[in-house]
Amino acid sequence: MGAGIAANLLRAGFAVTVYNRSREKAEVLAAAGAKLAHSPAQASANADVVMSMLADDQATEQVTFGDEGIAAGLKPEAVHIANSTISTALARRLAGEHGTRGQGYLSAPVFGRPDAAEAKRLIVAVAGSADLVERCSPVFDAIGRRTFVVGDEPWQANALKLCGNFMIASMMEAFGEAFTTMRKAGVDHHRFLDVMNELFASPVYKGYGTAMANETFEPAGFAMKLGLKDMRLVLQAAQEVAAPMPLASLLHDHFLAGVAQGNGEIDWCGIAKLAAKNAGL
Amino acid sequence: MGAGIAANLLRAGFAVTVYNRSREKAEVLAAAGAKLAHSPAQASANADVVMSMLADDQATEQVTFGDEGIAAGLKPEAVHIANSTISTALARRLAGEHGTRGQGYLSAPVFGRPDAAEAKRLIVAVAGSADLVERCSPVFDAIGRRTFVVGDEPWQANALKLCGNFMIASMMEAFGEAFTTMRKAGVDHHRFLDVMNELFASPVYKGYGTAMANETFEPAGFAMKLGLKDMRLVLQAAQEVAAPMPLASLLHDHFLAGVAQGNGEIDWCGIAKLAAKNAGL
Amino acid sequence: MGAGIAANLLRAGFAVTVYNRSREKAEVLAAAGAKLAHSPAQASANADVVMSMLADDQATEQVTFGDEGIAAGLKPEAVHIANSTISTALARRLAGEHGTRGQGYLSAPVFGRPDAAEAKRLIVAVAGSADLVERCSPVFDAIGRRTFVVGDEPWQANALKLCGNFMIASMMEAFGEAFTTMRKAGVDHHRFLDVMNELFASPVYKGYGTAMANETFEPAGFAMKLGLKDMRLVLQAAQEVAAPMPLASLLHDHFLAGVAQGNGEIDWCGIAKLAAKNAGL
Amino acid sequence: MGAGIAANLLRAGFAVTVYNRSREKAEVLAAAGAKLAHSPAQASANADVVMSMLADDQATEQVTFGDEGIAAGLKPEAVHIANSTISTALARRLAGEHGTRGQGYLSAPVFGRPDAAEAKRLIVAVAGSADLVERCSPVFDAIGRRTFVVGDEPWQANALKLCGNFMIASMMEAFGEAFTTMRKAGVDHHRFLDVMNELFASPVYKGYGTAMANETFEPAGFAMKLGLKDMRLVLQAAQEVAAPMPLASLLHDHFLAGVAQGNGEIDWCGIAKLAAKNAGL
Repeated sequence: MGAGIAANLLRAGFAVTVYNRSREKAEVLAAAGAKLAHSPAQASANADVVMSMLADDQATEQVTFGDEGIAAGLKPEAVHIANSTISTALARRLAGEHGTRGQGYLSAPVFGRPDAAEAKRLIVAVAGSADLVERCSPVFDAIGRRTFVVGDEPWQANALKLCGNFMIASMMEAFGEAFTTMRKAGVDHHRFLDVMNELFASPVYKGYGTAMANETFEPAGFAMKLGLKDMRLVLQAAQEVAAPMPLASLLHDHFLAGVAQGNGEIDWCGIAKLAAKNAGL
Repeated sequence: MGAGIAANLLRAGFAVTVYNRSREKAEVLAAAGAKLAHSPAQASANADVVMSMLADDQATEQVTFGDEGIAAGLKPEAVHIANSTISTALARRLAGEHGTRGQGYLSAPVFGRPDAAEAKRLIVAVAGSADLVERCSPVFDAIGRRTFVVGDEPWQANALKLCGNFMIASMMEAFGEAFTTMRKAGVDHHRFLDVMNELFASPVYKGYGTAMANETFEPAGFAMKLGLKDMRLVLQAAQEVAAPMPLASLLHDHFLAGVAQGNGEIDWCGIAKLAAKNAGL
Repeated sequence: MGAGIAANLLRAGFAVTVYNRSREKAEVLAAAGAKLAHSPAQASANADVVMSMLADDQATEQVTFGDEGIAAGLKPEAVHIANSTISTALARRLAGEHGTRGQGYLSAPVFGRPDAAEAKRLIVAVAGSADLVERCSPVFDAIGRRTFVVGDEPWQANALKLCGNFMIASMMEAFGEAFTTMRKAGVDHHRFLDVMNELFASPVYKGYGTAMANETFEPAGFAMKLGLKDMRLVLQAAQEVAAPMPLASLLHDHFLAGVAQGNGEIDWCGIAKLAAKNAGL
Repeated sequence: MGAGIAANLLRAGFAVTVYNRSREKAEVLAAAGAKLAHSPAQASANADVVMSMLADDQATEQVTFGDEGIAAGLKPEAVHIANSTISTALARRLAGEHGTRGQGYLSAPVFGRPDAAEAKRLIVAVAGSADLVERCSPVFDAIGRRTFVVGDEPWQANALKLCGNFMIASMMEAFGEAFTTMRKAGVDHHRFLDVMNELFASPVYKGYGTAMANETFEPAGFAMKLGLKDMRLVLQAAQEVAAPMPLASLLHDHFLAGVAQGNGEIDWCGIAKLAAKNAGL
């Protein structure tokens, strides 16, 4: 994800310094004009804005608060934008810790897979203080097709992103159950998908529906273990605000079963396997 | 629904005889060239094809097997096409009973609301013997935007239709839970809907999502008690083929709670009220 | 079940005529003093009270309304007591049909397995008109350890019986999930059962808990397919009165998965296998 | 809880030093022979064994690791026994932190309410290294009716305790749903309870069942917000070992709904209100 984002920043004319754990990936960007840094702190040192795109809370905490982390390198007044799908709790901690250092913080998680990042087709949901959001808007314009400002508190963007992933996972579970019933009823489930594509006319339904109908679960675009993590995080976010989400609980349990059965590394739409297996297929 | 379908049959040049319990509705079609019949039997008497569009199993049984019913009036070799969303069990009974009378039977449930029927925008899913389907294809072409042939046994089309309604209801439940969490998190749920519209880009998401975000639950386009009925029928169909559908069970329970709480007559997307109420909103 | 009940009626001094599809079972009772009949009608012919104990709705309908059925043989004023676990809908039909013939009807389902029937340890839940219940009380006294009168309408006893079976199945699911978590946590699940026996001090927990901990699922005391049937019936009964039962839905889905996976003939407490399998055990 | 435990330690002849935030409660024990301490550290200073009984993780962390906490006061070789229902994660942290100080640690959560603690009727589940468990066994003998050793790692006892609370909560949900269906079916739910008491013959069913049937939810013996916490913790423990617990998820969602609707302070068996409300009662 990060590579596509950085490439688009370069294309938009920003001066970009890159840090990545595996240096080869960063070197591709160097060829396109990026400077390379040896640590998050070094990458942040002279920046007005530093963006982080990482797998989970733990990686984000390490890159931000580690010895050579962003918080250690960032100037006062400069802004850390976290694009990762992290917990609302970590977003609040990031806001707090950067705030005590006089640094700005925005949560700006994105919808879209690596190819969408590359093609500048990301959807950006950003939250934080209005002036920071405005100051950073050229950055968002450079990386995505559309930016939505969703709240004054950074964690709200993370809550929204998690709810969005919950919407996608709900569709997957529905497809999984319907495909299974169709198959056991002797109806070609590809035909069912055709009808659903005519009905919903959504590229998301088409994309995931096709992968699920064909059982193309590897390589994973987004691993089931990450889907499980996101369902855990959306349930935490919902619990913080006392909102029961029974469908999210159902999804969580199904992803957990998938992981427990050894499918943590296949694509999260592989949740369809569980419905099939439950029905004896 | 029936009015729009009949109007399109007339427009396509078919000779149409109409029967409706409340005669006024039928008279509008008479003005457009339809003959009026005093009973289903009379409407079927000289027809090559008779189409029924009714609220549920009970109404379909009555109109088909009642004293003045379709089965009594229909010629041998003529075909009864049931467009209603009925149970797979009734579809099998219709196929059997018409068969013993030498009459043909097809299940051809449709996706689309009354305005789609009027605009010839229905999606038709048809199942039954291939020669009957072919013989009736001009009829399907006349009433919808696209026809899918989904199986050799009529009940398979009903199973598919029920699974399609399950897909729509799943989306509603997901929206209901996500809107609630967003609201309790202080995020404008209309904004969340904007992001989902950008992401899913589906007219179904846009249509229902807008109604749910605005809490426009009346008048009902499709009543919650009918949504409950469909979830009951999809669970029956799934049980017949031994396919567990835990998400359908969840939806069933939520629609049942809605009906139990006095909301049976509001639109089925009013399932969102339940999520909100559960969270204390 | 029926054999134990009949034996206790004989012991109590009642004149008993027996009908059973497989005659050998009936002959054991003949040795103990029962007369044998060649049909349900013959068994009912001179009886004041006829009791039916059958596997399900279909068998009960056949034995009652078949050509040589109870309804055809029973005198006016005589009473049919159905001890089976049948649907509330069938109970209403039995009450109605016997009523139109001037015959009485009571639902009197029982809790207890065959050994409890033999030992006169059944719990009887009876519903119907008060005078019939009183008239038949010596019969209930003869077959069980305790009789509860639960309502004026026969179907209410069936609703209660189904809710009772739901209580037992809920305990099974809870054990299944807890045993699985214990095992994956490295805790001996037999030890967990010891603690639960100390806590709940219930013979039902001890009996089923031991079978589940030892995975003694065969031979079935009560088959999983019958457990599935009962969960279906309790959900129907609950839907009739507009009462959502999400836990019953969960149990239904799990029993259905068990049956779909080929476990319909093992004991219903084999639902524990599903929790284990879901967790990768 | 702590008062009853301390009183029984005194009765058994142990020298007891007590610390409690609200000093009045501690003074009652002083009258019975206990010494009073001004801090957890002081209470631990000369002890061979220190027991903590607190509401949740946060309180346990504070009392253990705060400035004047147990860890600061406890001698090497002495043992901290945590009797609270805490998370498996905290249990591991307690084991680790005490270990690095050369102090011993055991998890020994208990089943039973304050009156059971007073009456020496607690059930104790203990886990940790075998020699520590043996060394502390006179303590367990002094406070409960029976002690179960459930594992070598302290957190295993916490996992077991959480699963035990899950078993109790499952029974509550089952009662709540069944009572609601009975009421809507016109059956006296107290009568249903009578049948269940005859069937299960369990004091736990009798105690909670009676409270639920009478809707005696206040004052809370154990608050719904604590029930919610425990369901959250059992799901965390299950997730750590990759065991899906769909029934625990259902319970979690229902307790969360109860708390969201303002019932966090009533007894956790008030979960029955939710089933009733869902059904329109």
